[in-house]
Amino acid sequence: MGGKRAWNIEVPKNAVEVKNPIRALVEKIGAPNPEKKVITLAQGDPTVFGYLPAPEAAVEAVVAATTSGRQNGYGHSCGSAECRSAVAEAHSPPGHRVTADDVFLTAGCSQGLEHAIGLLGTKGKNLLLPSPGFPLYETICEYYGIEPRFYQLRAEKDWSVDFDALRSLVDDHTVGILICNPSNPTGSNFSKQELESYISFAEENCLPIIADEVYEGMVFPGEKFYSMAELSERVPIISVGAISKRFLVPGWRLGWVILHDRNDILQAADFSHGMKGQHMIRLGPCSLIQAAVPEMLKKVDDSWLAGVMSKLEASAEVCIRRTEGIPGLFIAARPKGAMYVMIGVDFAHFPGVSDASEFAQKLFKGQSVMVLPGELFRAEGMFRLCFAGPPEVMEEAFDRIAEHCEEIGEQRSPSDRICTPQHQTMPNKRMKRVNSFVA
Amino acid sequence: MGGKRAWNIEVPKNAVEVKNPIRALVEKIGAPNPEKKVITLAQGDPTVFGYLPAPEAAVEAVVAATTSGRQNGYGHSCGSAECRSAVAEAHSPPGHRVTADDVFLTAGCSQGLEHAIGLLGTKGKNLLLPSPGFPLYETICEYYGIEPRFYQLRAEKDWSVDFDALRSLVDDHTVGILICNPSNPTGSNFSKQELESYISFAEENCLPIIADEVYEGMVFPGEKFYSMAELSERVPIISVGAISKRFLVPGWRLGWVILHDRNDILQAADFSHGMKGQHMIRLGPCSLIQAAVPEMLKKVDDSWLAGVMSKLEASAEVCIRRTEGIPGLFIAARPKGAMYVMIGVDFAHFPGVSDASEFAQKLFKGQSVMVLPGELFRAEGMFRLCFAGPPEVMEEAFDRIAEHCEEIGEQRSPSDRICTPQHQTMPNKRMKRVNSFVA
Ligand SMILES: Cc1ncc(COP(=O)(O)O)c(C=O)c1O
Ligand SMILES: Cc1ncc(COP(=O)(O)O)c(C=O)c1O
Repeated sequence: MGGKRAWNIEVPKNAVEVKNPIRALVEKIGAPNPEKKVITLAQGDPTVFGYLPAPEAAVEAVVAATTSGRQNGYGHSCGSAECRSAVAEAHSPPGHRVTADDVFLTAGCSQGLEHAIGLLGTKGKNLLLPSPGFPLYETICEYYGIEPRFYQLRAEKDWSVDFDALRSLVDDHTVGILICNPSNPTGSNFSKQELESYISFAEENCLPIIADEVYEGMVFPGEKFYSMAELSERVPIISVGAISKRFLVPGWRLGWVILHDRNDILQAADFSHGMKGQHMIRLGPCSLIQAAVPEMLKKVDDSWLAGVMSKLEASAEVCIRRTEGIPGLFIAARPKGAMYVMIGVDFAHFPGVSDASEFAQKLFKGQSVMVLPGELFRAEGMFRLCFAGPPEVMEEAFDRIAEHCEEIGEQRSPSDRICTPQHQTMPNKRMKRVNSFVA
Repeated sequence: MGGKRAWNIEVPKNAVEVKNPIRALVEKIGAPNPEKKVITLAQGDPTVFGYLPAPEAAVEAVVAATTSGRQNGYGHSCGSAECRSAVAEAHSPPGHRVTADDVFLTAGCSQGLEHAIGLLGTKGKNLLLPSPGFPLYETICEYYGIEPRFYQLRAEKDWSVDFDALRSLVDDHTVGILICNPSNPTGSNFSKQELESYISFAEENCLPIIADEVYEGMVFPGEKFYSMAELSERVPIISVGAISKRFLVPGWRLGWVILHDRNDILQAADFSHGMKGQHMIRLGPCSLIQAAVPEMLKKVDDSWLAGVMSKLEASAEVCIRRTEGIPGLFIAARPKGAMYVMIGVDFAHFPGVSDASEFAQKLFKGQSVMVLPGELFRAEGMFRLCFAGPPEVMEEAFDRIAEHCEEIGEQRSPSDRICTPQHQTMPNKRMKRVNSFVA
């Protein structure tokens, strides 16, 4: 008591230690080649090239909300009734209606994930996460002290899971499974049958599913997207989503958590009560965007999205064709949607680099092309590329990638030319290498 | 492993138990008198009456950002450099420049508070909070397991603190003091001398100050607002603010934390690192609003704010004059700014009600006028009223409050007419009564 004390501020470790490898990388990456204009195929931001403009109806709806002068005030902390209803209506599968009360509006899908993961798990529990997968899942788990357990998706089998391996991860402290579909970083879109197998697995093990469906409906022409909620009769689905990707406006920061709880299992656990608690502290996303969402969901229809997906497919095709023409690179599995493809690196071709981080780092330094090394997603020997740029930009990027590959492959002798894919995923290993790249 | 398990979802207690009494109240309050139009003087939302429109320059800046098509993407997770710089420039006190790196953009001042409190404290620590005070402080402390310790502000002494009492609250686990100025719920604006006394106290005890300055500059004509950062030479000031009140757009959800750290004390504790960690998970506020803020800060000047404050003062004057004309009610202390006044209730006049919660509840039921009982702010025997409505609405509200007071005072016998103010604040008592009102 009293007397002279010392300054002694202790910042909680879990905050200081937060790692969001993608953002850390993008925010801290070193200098590109000053002679070449930067082309970034790194971040999952569909807006960077201007190739994919936001829907006009969305822009008009925000402008209308802004000029109305009637959308500047506080709303309900879980989001406005109008916006929640509209999201509920757009996400009610046949035979199962969700209502505004089942929807919680968040600051992007990221906050939806933070809330969903934070409500399912606590210290000492574990959550099943896809590998490769979006690194924010792990970041959030670590923030809350939840152990992430990675289930491996197999590139050579079109990113399907080995269910026996998956089952072996479950123990009494497992609180759920997170499934991302369509997937970042793999670009896969699971078949109905595969999704049903996940649901059966979850049911057998009484595990609720967190369905990251931020890329809902974003599949190439000819593919069909199924939501987990439409397929699940008995397993509660905590679906997280956002307007970020689907409407090409990630900066607007509006997402949601939808509780599909046909059998009142979440209800029995007071789940929505916990959701409300989190929202009491944080309030909802920007009121102007909330006001615009009902119009956006009504006016921006599937045919608009189909147009976007055709454009994305055209760019994906460039990546695939050009990758096939570069010795030492290969397509890990053909993408079916989202905005990503994983490209494998055969290091036997490239004596000058030892892993994908080094590959990516040198590519940026020499050619000013930014891609993300697979290690960020727990996939060694690959890099992820976002194909949201127009085909001509992708061509230019691949001209440079080809030049880069020639350069780093230069010194090899012909006898080294053995082409064995060396990629592998890293289910339960710490992401050590990432840090050196990020720093 | 395997075998049939049971559904067993355990939602963390701290989430389920979150209480944000104001929002809980506003979202759950019972039915008003169906014969009378609701007048809500409850929430601190300056937009509800249309009396105080957002600045035109702000609306134009958001529209420009929206129609540009160039502000839809992800930005830096702590906020865009342009917006952070603009906030830094507008908040650099003479002789001490803060830069973009010292500014962290948040989803409203609420999230700024969440981050600031969450970084200073952890389980087992305690934080000094004003009583009466904004209830979100306590909500956040409880969410993080930090013990809130309340220092009492004395209505009868113009809401000043007793520094001896304040000192007696400090122990080895005290991590800081939160000061709200201008104040919600009291409407006070501390003098330079009083703020300097707080700073001396903090320095003596090596306590960083969280300065909730969401009402910065919002003082009546003739009053002067001092920021803690301009007065503190040696104590680090973690200033939280927002465009919410100052620009009359709380729904837009853009706030900030500014680290004023002249002597690198926060720096030594890795504080900004922790801030960055929190932002890695959450990203920044809506990009369109971020893009608009530099324009807003440039174009919306002090004379515009002075106009708003004159309008608020006119409405405050109505409250004061009318309160003085109602037997049994009294002004706890004349407001000097923000948007609030605390009105004391002399229960000797009102045998029909036993506390401010009952007073407020009956007022809503009978007269459809919503005010907040002081218990929500730890001030018994008072209610808080927000004077953001136009004078004529305040008159109408007071006509009804007068009628209400007559009704609830009706049955009293003349001998009960003893006018002793019975208000008191409740520094370290749990807010039990609140719940019955909220339910
Ligand atoms: C799979 C996945 N989930 C969630 C998010 C976060 O989305 P938001 O920007 O809406 O927070 C992303 C962003 O890239 C993502 O790829
Ligand atoms: C003192 C105080 N701090 C913080 C806030 C929260 O502000 P925001 O709406 O920007 O989150 C309020 C809102 O009423 C307030 O009165």
